[in-house]
Amino acid sequence: MIVDCHGHYTTAPQALWDWRKRQASGEKISETALKISDDDIRVSLEGAQLKLQRERGSDVTFFSPRAGSMEHHVGDAAISAQWARVQNDLIHRVCALYPKNFAPVCMLPQSPGVSPANCAEELARCVTQMGFIGCNLNPDPSGGWWKEPPLTDRWWYPIYEKMAELDVPAMVHVSSSCNPAFHFTGAHYINADTTAFMQLIQGDLFKDFPRLKLIIPHGGGAVPYHWGRYRGLAQDMKRPLLEDHLLRNVYFDTCVYHQPGIDLLLKVIPVANILFASEMVGAVRGIDPETGHYFDDTKRYIDASRLGASDKQKIFEGNARTVYPRWRT
Amino acid sequence: MIVDCHGHYTTAPQALWDWRKRQASGEKISETALKISDDDIRVSLEGAQLKLQRERGSDVTFFSPRAGSMEHHVGDAAISAQWARVQNDLIHRVCALYPKNFAPVCMLPQSPGVSPANCAEELARCVTQMGFIGCNLNPDPSGGWWKEPPLTDRWWYPIYEKMAELDVPAMVHVSSSCNPAFHFTGAHYINADTTAFMQLIQGDLFKDFPRLKLIIPHGGGAVPYHWGRYRGLAQDMKRPLLEDHLLRNVYFDTCVYHQPGIDLLLKVIPVANILFASEMVGAVRGIDPETGHYFDDTKRYIDASRLGASDKQKIFEGNARTVYPRWRT
Repeated sequence: MIVDCHGHYTTAPQALWDWRKRQASGEKISETALKISDDDIRVSLEGAQLKLQRERGSDVTFFSPRAGSMEHHVGDAAISAQWARVQNDLIHRVCALYPKNFAPVCMLPQSPGVSPANCAEELARCVTQMGFIGCNLNPDPSGGWWKEPPLTDRWWYPIYEKMAELDVPAMVHVSSSCNPAFHFTGAHYINADTTAFMQLIQGDLFKDFPRLKLIIPHGGGAVPYHWGRYRGLAQDMKRPLLEDHLLRNVYFDTCVYHQPGIDLLLKVIPVANILFASEMVGAVRGIDPETGHYFDDTKRYIDASRLGASDKQKIFEGNARTVYPRWRT
Repeated sequence: MIVDCHGHYTTAPQALWDWRKRQASGEKISETALKISDDDIRVSLEGAQLKLQRERGSDVTFFSPRAGSMEHHVGDAAISAQWARVQNDLIHRVCALYPKNFAPVCMLPQSPGVSPANCAEELARCVTQMGFIGCNLNPDPSGGWWKEPPLTDRWWYPIYEKMAELDVPAMVHVSSSCNPAFHFTGAHYINADTTAFMQLIQGDLFKDFPRLKLIIPHGGGAVPYHWGRYRGLAQDMKRPLLEDHLLRNVYFDTCVYHQPGIDLLLKVIPVANILFASEMVGAVRGIDPETGHYFDDTKRYIDASRLGASDKQKIFEGNARTVYPRWRT
């Protein structure tokens, strides 16, 4: 079985984005004003994610709202709360229509400067009432200005406590960038991955939350490429070995869009810490002229790697069962 | 010949840091108040950079002020101007004492929100009066808050014009981070490298400055690991092939502190775009328990790679002669 742990509803019907535009503009708009039929949902997926699942041979995608659309920096906490409900409800409908193809992952109603305690209720609603199996946690709800404390700060503990209670992991995933210095998918996403991992090296989060699990997407940002740097920095800082300090709790996905990158990831990061993912339909949508295949058809790179069948099975399925204990087929 | 294009004076005498502390505190202090003897300089280098050059077999280091100490965010432009003169004068003395071992690279007197035009005079002074061969350009003089426009913005053109006139390259290198989210050597440096490259993809800087040369340090941040992502993003954005768009002007150094990272770099980036560097004595100072050698002894990784002798010569020396035309042995 092939489990893609990282997919966003990038192809959601236009009605969703129109509703959001009105909400973000300050209009008081009810959630019931959003009209999307089951057929609208089917159309949005059949020619995109579902088609690509069939073509590429993946079975199920852990599916969350479009990362760039979380936009926690827009409006206040009440705006974020309503937007998160709307987006998560829609993800729930997708997964109810296609229970074999998608498993639901929620966005959180974060808001800059607001305690993440405000996310506990929506997380609990999603997990206990709608069967969600994980969440996306944004380390920078300001959208590229990085004003929140590091992820290891007690500021974040209320959401970790709720995650621990509900036994769900978080993917550490920023949203769009308001900072002209940072292109969102080309710089902000990758920087956030690198930044989060370094914050985890500096802190002791998993002493307080030994069962907490975090997934760093996009192949861990720059981390595997600079694995020697991170091992060396940890050593200079008198931190434990990364294996002991972080690798019981931190996982990397395989959203790395060329063979040499995947080969490096598989070489330096233990197999137990790697989860298959493609992020399709996502940041890169074209065909690589050097291979003739989609850049984000990451299954091909894993297939072509030197790993044995047992290791591949862990990356494609087994590890996902460990990291997402609420996911049941 | 082995040319290390990326070294900082991290071991400068304590008198320098003491002087800076007084200057940064707001005290009016003259440049002549700084007392460092030639013997102080010798002592600061003999047991460190010079010893390591001998032990590792490198011949010359392109040497600049400690990156973390540039601190463009401290004080105003006048403070930065004085600090840059002091630091660059000291680098000049180092290179005069050890002309075979070091070639000088300057810091610029950048200041947040101040046009980089203010750096032209100091750059010209260093190059024309003291034989400097390059400079370090900080894309984020705010120190982790990223308030300056992208490097492709006309905001930056005055310094590029002066660089072009003087025929010197810039290494794109941030300084310390005031943002608690970003560890300086573990996140801010690497993020800046990634960010700068993505800015260059988005813009058309080299149409206006076809001979400008920029070095992205730390192995290009996350870029080579995500080379497929960057090729794919460029293609989706209708940008030219990266080879045509950037690789006549952009170079990566080899400050990647493990063999698999260097192997990836050498595999995906053309040999003509790679310059040997170690950044010793720098971010990572320990010995890798997995190899028994210093993490930052990057020459070992190049030596152990599959490249042929001719390609290695280009990385160790030949490319540096192209990128730093003012460097003459």
